[in-house]
Amino acid sequence: MPEPIFLSLDGIDGTGKSTQVRRLVDALRAGGAAVTACVDPGGTELGAKLREILLHGRATAIDARAEALLFMASRAELVARVIRPALARGEVVVSDRFLLANVVYQGHAGGLDPRELWDVGRFTTGGLMPDLTIVFDLPVVAARSRRGRPADRIESRGADYDERVRNGYLAEARVNPDGIAVLDASPDADAVHAATLALVRPLLAARGHPA
Amino acid sequence: MPEPIFLSLDGIDGTGKSTQVRRLVDALRAGGAAVTACVDPGGTELGAKLREILLHGRATAIDARAEALLFMASRAELVARVIRPALARGEVVVSDRFLLANVVYQGHAGGLDPRELWDVGRFTTGGLMPDLTIVFDLPVVAARSRRGRPADRIESRGADYDERVRNGYLAEARVNPDGIAVLDASPDADAVHAATLALVRPLLAARGHPA
Repeated sequence: MPEPIFLSLDGIDGTGKSTQVRRLVDALRAGGAAVTACVDPGGTELGAKLREILLHGRATAIDARAEALLFMASRAELVARVIRPALARGEVVVSDRFLLANVVYQGHAGGLDPRELWDVGRFTTGGLMPDLTIVFDLPVVAARSRRGRPADRIESRGADYDERVRNGYLAEARVNPDGIAVLDASPDADAVHAATLALVRPLLAARGHPA
Repeated sequence: MPEPIFLSLDGIDGTGKSTQVRRLVDALRAGGAAVTACVDPGGTELGAKLREILLHGRATAIDARAEALLFMASRAELVARVIRPALARGEVVVSDRFLLANVVYQGHAGGLDPRELWDVGRFTTGGLMPDLTIVFDLPVVAARSRRGRPADRIESRGADYDERVRNGYLAEARVNPDGIAVLDASPDADAVHAATLALVRPLLAARGHPA
């Protein structure tokens, strides 16, 4: 029986992340792997309520720590209800964002201490971390011009904020190069998809999944 | 100008805690002190939404870590919007429950690690802790018989759970006797109120509030 794999795909909005999640999941399934896909925040009844509060629900600001803790609460529920059960079945889990996004958005860009967010995150997940996180990287100006929809509450924080987010992803990848891989998202979607598969395939093979 | 004081009153339901909060706040105001009273979870727009999810909103269970993190999120917002501003004005803040309740209910009674909950709590409050927490203590059987209303989702967890909660309060008070005072809640409400005032008055006097 294959051993479970937990993958997370991340990056600033406009890098094509969600498209790449969909393409990766489709490719893995087409190859015969059992895959559970999820979105963080979201993916549970509680997560849907919190996602609404976090991204769309309010005119007034939420305190930065409260905001981070709502993301964490949604993630704890997602881990308990969706991710751990899928891993227990030996599946490949592909999550659109995970803890790293909190560390970068609320920490590096938002002014909270990234180390404290990692610590709260370890409590949140009970110590579960992705085997590999792939960060899609693009200059902020390019990412902004690719976004084809109105910004949500967090996206609307401006280019300086986006710049700090991008630099946060790159900084975290530098200190954890085995756990976080950075992919250049500037080529076309087919090329980025191929590069994503090239990163994931060795892990699939090593754990007994069809690659 | 008086220096701020942060008080929290806590204990299992049925000990008369909320009555004692009201009587303490009334007595302090009648004596001329500037008092802000609050309830945790609650006290903000976000807190009201989360309180509803935590105590009444769902038929299905919430994961223990997610539950603890929702309490924390509500508390972070309460600290930022209500407690810190009141303390900055030099007031006495009286909170009906605070972080200790999470440590005891979700930790000692609920199976999470109390030390991890203290750590997440320190992130949540940015290091702010009550100057004094008063725990109203009563045997579980006596507390249950005093409750005059249907149990909410957390209260309905049974007598064993309540026993672990009570023992958790007592254990935390033993390791932090300066920060947590245990009051016998078995006498009548007037006597418990007098005992509460006797604990609070020296702190009021020391910080320049009318006592």
